[in-house]
Amino acid sequence: MITTPTLLVDEQKCRRNIEKMAAKAKRLNLSFRPHFKTHQSHEVGRWYREAGVTKITCSSFEMATYFAEDSWDDILVAFPVNVLEVATINQLAAGVKLGIVAESVESIDILSEPLNHEVDVYIKIDVGTHRTGINPDNIEGISAIIQRICSSEKMTFQGFLAHAGHSYGCRGKVEILNVHADCMRQLSKLKEHFPEALISYGDTPTCSIADTFEPVDELRPGNFCFYDLMQHQIGSCDEDEIAVALACPVVAKHPERNEVVIYGGGVHFSKDFITEDGERTYGRVVEKTGAVWGKMLPEIKLDRVSQEHGILNAPDSWIENLKIGDLVYVLPVHSCLTMNLLRGFNKV
Amino acid sequence: MITTPTLLVDEQKCRRNIEKMAAKAKRLNLSFRPHFKTHQSHEVGRWYREAGVTKITCSSFEMATYFAEDSWDDILVAFPVNVLEVATINQLAAGVKLGIVAESVESIDILSEPLNHEVDVYIKIDVGTHRTGINPDNIEGISAIIQRICSSEKMTFQGFLAHAGHSYGCRGKVEILNVHADCMRQLSKLKEHFPEALISYGDTPTCSIADTFEPVDELRPGNFCFYDLMQHQIGSCDEDEIAVALACPVVAKHPERNEVVIYGGGVHFSKDFITEDGERTYGRVVEKTGAVWGKMLPEIKLDRVSQEHGILNAPDSWIENLKIGDLVYVLPVHSCLTMNLLRGFNKV
Repeated sequence: MITTPTLLVDEQKCRRNIEKMAAKAKRLNLSFRPHFKTHQSHEVGRWYREAGVTKITCSSFEMATYFAEDSWDDILVAFPVNVLEVATINQLAAGVKLGIVAESVESIDILSEPLNHEVDVYIKIDVGTHRTGINPDNIEGISAIIQRICSSEKMTFQGFLAHAGHSYGCRGKVEILNVHADCMRQLSKLKEHFPEALISYGDTPTCSIADTFEPVDELRPGNFCFYDLMQHQIGSCDEDEIAVALACPVVAKHPERNEVVIYGGGVHFSKDFITEDGERTYGRVVEKTGAVWGKMLPEIKLDRVSQEHGILNAPDSWIENLKIGDLVYVLPVHSCLTMNLLRGFNKV
Repeated sequence: MITTPTLLVDEQKCRRNIEKMAAKAKRLNLSFRPHFKTHQSHEVGRWYREAGVTKITCSSFEMATYFAEDSWDDILVAFPVNVLEVATINQLAAGVKLGIVAESVESIDILSEPLNHEVDVYIKIDVGTHRTGINPDNIEGISAIIQRICSSEKMTFQGFLAHAGHSYGCRGKVEILNVHADCMRQLSKLKEHFPEALISYGDTPTCSIADTFEPVDELRPGNFCFYDLMQHQIGSCDEDEIAVALACPVVAKHPERNEVVIYGGGVHFSKDFITEDGERTYGRVVEKTGAVWGKMLPEIKLDRVSQEHGILNAPDSWIENLKIGDLVYVLPVHSCLTMNLLRGFNKV
């Protein structure tokens, strides 16, 4: 029995999302290395394994260690390598095929000496997000890093890592495909200079929507296994592909201001929000249909969150039928952060 | 040795914050029941105990259970009671003096029957935050709830709980004191109707700044033990009273756009931000002075966070002297959420 805020994972929807993306990669003859930061779960990882996945992406060495414990043995940590963790890197690389990411000669130089197991190295390319990575036009800079990697005894240069994070600013398929086309153009130019290098690419919006990825060799999206309100707003998924919801107990009702207080706040949902008509939305209530859920109720939204409280905005007619102690199901804005906070889930 | 994002707690500053607030409560002859949701730590709890604290506030029954395990035996859970947790309530109330909060006859009615240990009940009063609680002018509604509590075998009506959460919208002492004066006016009127009822009141801004709390009986702030950038912006504390910082490794440098990438993102800081000159700030870098830290560096801010990445905005001159693998110390925007994410800290 659910008594506190609990993440529900619709196993059928989640497996369907996984299978759909795996099938797309297969159809396009692309390697598939899904990002596991979204679910951080051995169990969901096994659903991927059953869909034929053999290599994965993580966002930290701690997470890579967690998945190595469940027999994953080909792991890329897609984050600019944190040189302070060289001891963990050595430990991991002793047991698995480990990929790390660099974007400077400085990082390579610091790691070369203390590294005592072989690692694959990818260079992060900035295709427009301007968060991390090196400009793909900077052929000289890229060549210098590759040279340094190749002269390091334990490092093997594998290729390039790109992430179209700026696709998160898109609204709708046309905008997503425009961002995607621009990324493909940049990566094609890069491939001309380095034809032997593998190109790994991943972000949920473009991987969900695009159907051609030339010159990419590998897809690396993560969020798509769950999706969420943010991806729905971007246009990456349909409403009924969102595979997670939070079950939250009703603790107070304020019909006089069209509000309901739920047990479910920033320590459950995170403080991430989407903006709709200039107003913040932290979640959306869905119709309960037995153990799972149906359509979004467009007139009910999670309007504010504090540490443990969530405030729903809802019409009188809905509040009238609600009792203290009822559970409401709420789609989260950002499933990766919600999962990270809750660290567990109920399958439905 | 620190290798990953790590919360640093300056023990001296934290103990000083605790002692200052305890001394204020004592001087004003007020009961002191600090909120432990900020630190969620047995160790910090013991610093409170050494400052003479014997009763505490929590925001969930899970947290109350955690502190009961460290011998706290007078615990108020300051959240509209979640009736689904009656089994946990019974377990807790068997061992400690437990306070719960209600704001409706409905909650009381649901709990009356299954409750098998004595609990104190407080009624939540809405002094202007409009998050939870009953309007203090609604004497009839309040009386009805009190009557219901009194007719329940295991419940004892203790008094009222108020939280001036709208003080978080204040900027500076004058605004804080205005919100406070308005709350005191409302609570004084309430006291006239219910002279025997205890009034418990708490929020860090007013408790930090105000010096008179008539007609309040008990202070219940929490965040003040650490403070953070949000409290500093509100005007609750001085910069040098902020007792927590995150140590984050530098993983990449982008002097061409005045940016540095740190390992430290939304899963460490949370996604809470403050707005300064119309721009979001997720943290502020401070001067490192040995193991602790000194002044804020006004020209360096945490500009964006994604799951694991933090992007600092900084001048060339600072970036020039920075090396990959250096640790930077960053003051968080909201220490409660940061602590909740990191679940542990290093004392400095």
